[in-house]
Amino acid sequence: MKKRIVIALGGNAILTDDGTAEAQRQAIMETVRHIADLVEEGHEVVLSHGNGPQIGAILIQQQMADSEKTPAMDLGTCGAMSQGMIGYWFQQLLKNELARRGIERQVVAMITQSEVSSTDPAFDHPTKPIGPFYTEEEAMKMQANGDVLVEDAGRGYRKVVASPKPIQIVEAPVIQDLLDAGHLVIAAGGGGVPVVREQYTLRGVEAVIDKDFAAAQLAQSIEATHLMIITGVSNVYIHYNQPNQEKLGTISTSRLEQLIEENHFMAGSMLPKVEAALQFIEADSNREAVITDIASLKGAIAETEGTRIRYDVASPDMVY
Amino acid sequence: MKKRIVIALGGNAILTDDGTAEAQRQAIMETVRHIADLVEEGHEVVLSHGNGPQIGAILIQQQMADSEKTPAMDLGTCGAMSQGMIGYWFQQLLKNELARRGIERQVVAMITQSEVSSTDPAFDHPTKPIGPFYTEEEAMKMQANGDVLVEDAGRGYRKVVASPKPIQIVEAPVIQDLLDAGHLVIAAGGGGVPVVREQYTLRGVEAVIDKDFAAAQLAQSIEATHLMIITGVSNVYIHYNQPNQEKLGTISTSRLEQLIEENHFMAGSMLPKVEAALQFIEADSNREAVITDIASLKGAIAETEGTRIRYDVASPDMVY
Repeated sequence: MKKRIVIALGGNAILTDDGTAEAQRQAIMETVRHIADLVEEGHEVVLSHGNGPQIGAILIQQQMADSEKTPAMDLGTCGAMSQGMIGYWFQQLLKNELARRGIERQVVAMITQSEVSSTDPAFDHPTKPIGPFYTEEEAMKMQANGDVLVEDAGRGYRKVVASPKPIQIVEAPVIQDLLDAGHLVIAAGGGGVPVVREQYTLRGVEAVIDKDFAAAQLAQSIEATHLMIITGVSNVYIHYNQPNQEKLGTISTSRLEQLIEENHFMAGSMLPKVEAALQFIEADSNREAVITDIASLKGAIAETEGTRIRYDVASPDMVY
Repeated sequence: MKKRIVIALGGNAILTDDGTAEAQRQAIMETVRHIADLVEEGHEVVLSHGNGPQIGAILIQQQMADSEKTPAMDLGTCGAMSQGMIGYWFQQLLKNELARRGIERQVVAMITQSEVSSTDPAFDHPTKPIGPFYTEEEAMKMQANGDVLVEDAGRGYRKVVASPKPIQIVEAPVIQDLLDAGHLVIAAGGGGVPVVREQYTLRGVEAVIDKDFAAAQLAQSIEATHLMIITGVSNVYIHYNQPNQEKLGTISTSRLEQLIEENHFMAGSMLPKVEAALQFIEADSNREAVITDIASLKGAIAETEGTRIRYDVASPDMVY
C-alpha cells in the first residue's frame, strides 16, 4: 500500500565532524540510499532536514566578512541560503541514486517559509544560541542594540533567539501538488524560514524553528500517513543504561504521554521529537509516527524496527 | 489571451549599489509590482534572475572565513545558496504584493540545476572572473593547483571559470507541472547550478551559466509563449548616441541576425541577450522575445513598448 511519508532528517544524516562540501555530500550519499529504498517500494516521500551546523557556519562567515561591500544578512536569509545549499546536495544525490536503480524521478528542493505567531510566548524568552562567539565587550554592545546574549560554558557570549512553534507551512499546498504529480520533494529545511503574518502579508522574524515540529506541521498539512523522525539512535529508550532499561518498540500515544509526564525525555533532545510525533498523530488515528535512525528507516516502514507511535482509540490506557 | 511568460531579470532589478538585505529587498519590492501586473492580467509567470553581485559576496565571505571549522564551499554550492537567498526574497515579496491586490496565489522558489556539456568548448577557455581578488603570490599558488587566474585592471588577480551553454534545465518538467497547477515559479536563478551528465548521474562543475541563455532554454522546455529579458534600458539601440541612432521596436529575427553580423552588439553585454532571444524564437514561429526594462514589462506584453523580436516566416528579408 502506497504511503505518504515525511522524513525529518537530523543534522547527523548530513554532517558529522568534517564540514567540507565533499564530506557532507559523502554523508548524504549514504543517507539517500535509505530514502531511495522507500521510493523503490512505491511510497511518496517528502524530505525535511536540519540545518544547525550549516547555518552556524554561514552566520560565522557572514560575521567575519561583514563590511559595506559584503554586509551580513539577517538570520532568515541565512536560513534560506542553507536550504539552497543542502537542498541542492540532496536533490542531485537522491536523483542520482534513483537513476542508478533505473528509477526516473524528478526531485525538487523548494525554499519553504514557516508561519509562526507573533504572540508565541517563545518570543518573550529567547533560548536558542546561534552563530559565532563574542567577547564580553562585543556582547554588551549588542545587548544595548536589543539583542539577547548568554554566556556559553566559558567559551564566550552567544546570541540567543526564540524558537516559536510553526503554525502553518506557507508552501504546503505546492508540496501537495508536487506529490500528486509524482515528484519527490525536499522542503521545510531547517524548519523553514520563520515568518509572521501581518494582515495579508508575510514578514521574516529573527527566530529558529525546531525542524521536527515543522516536519510534523507539514505532515499534517499534506495529510501524510507517516512521519519519520530520524535521529542518531534506532529506538527511544527509558531508563537508558540502567538495570530496568526499556527499548520502546510500538507504543501508544497515551503511554507516551504518561512517560512525558514522568520526565523520561530530555528537553532539547528526545522530548521535542516525542512531542512532534504526538502532535502529528493526534489529529488522525490512522497515522503513524516513528523515531529511529536512518539505517532502520525501511524496517520501520515494514513495522519491524524503530519506536513506532500509534493512536489508541479503543482504550486510552491500552499499552501495545 | 493567457500567455506563458518567462521573465529573466537582470541584476539591477535586485541590487544597485547597496548590498544590504534591506536595500535588496526594497529593490525587489519595486520589481515585483511590475511582475504582479502580469499575474493580475491572468498570465502564467516564471521568474528567473541573475545572481552576479550576490554570489560574488558569498564567495568573498567563504574565502575570508575559510578554515577547518567553516570551510569554503564549491562554486556550485554557493550558486545554490544564492538561489535560496534571492528566491526567498522574491517568493515572499511577490506573494505579499499579490495578497495586497487580493490575489491568493502560491509562489515557489525552487533550486534549479542546468545541464551543460562536458565537451563544451567554453571549458577550454575560461573567461568569467568570479569571487575575490588575490595577490600575485596567492595567484601563483592557485595556478599551480590548476585554477586559471587573470590580472584584473590593476586591482589584483581573479579566478576565471568557463561559461558553457545550458543544454537542459534539469527541473523543467517540475516547473511545467507547477505552472499547470496555477502556481508562480521562481527558477533557474543565476542561470542554474551547472552540472554535467555522467551516464545517468549529475555532477556539479566549476562554471557559471549566462542567466539569459538559461532562461531561453527554460522557456523552450516549458513551451513558453514569451521570453522577457529585463535589462537597464527600455529598448535595444543601434548607433547609440550618434546622428543615425535607431531605437529598435518590433524587429524580425532575420534583421536582428543581420545586425549581429554587422557587430552592432557588444559581447558580454547586449549580444548574449539578443542571441538568447533568437534561440528561443527559432524553434517556434509563434513565440515572441522581448528585451526591455522592468518599467516597460506590462507595455511590452501589450505590444507598445520594448524591443520585440518575432520570427519572419513569410519573407526572410521582411523588416517589421
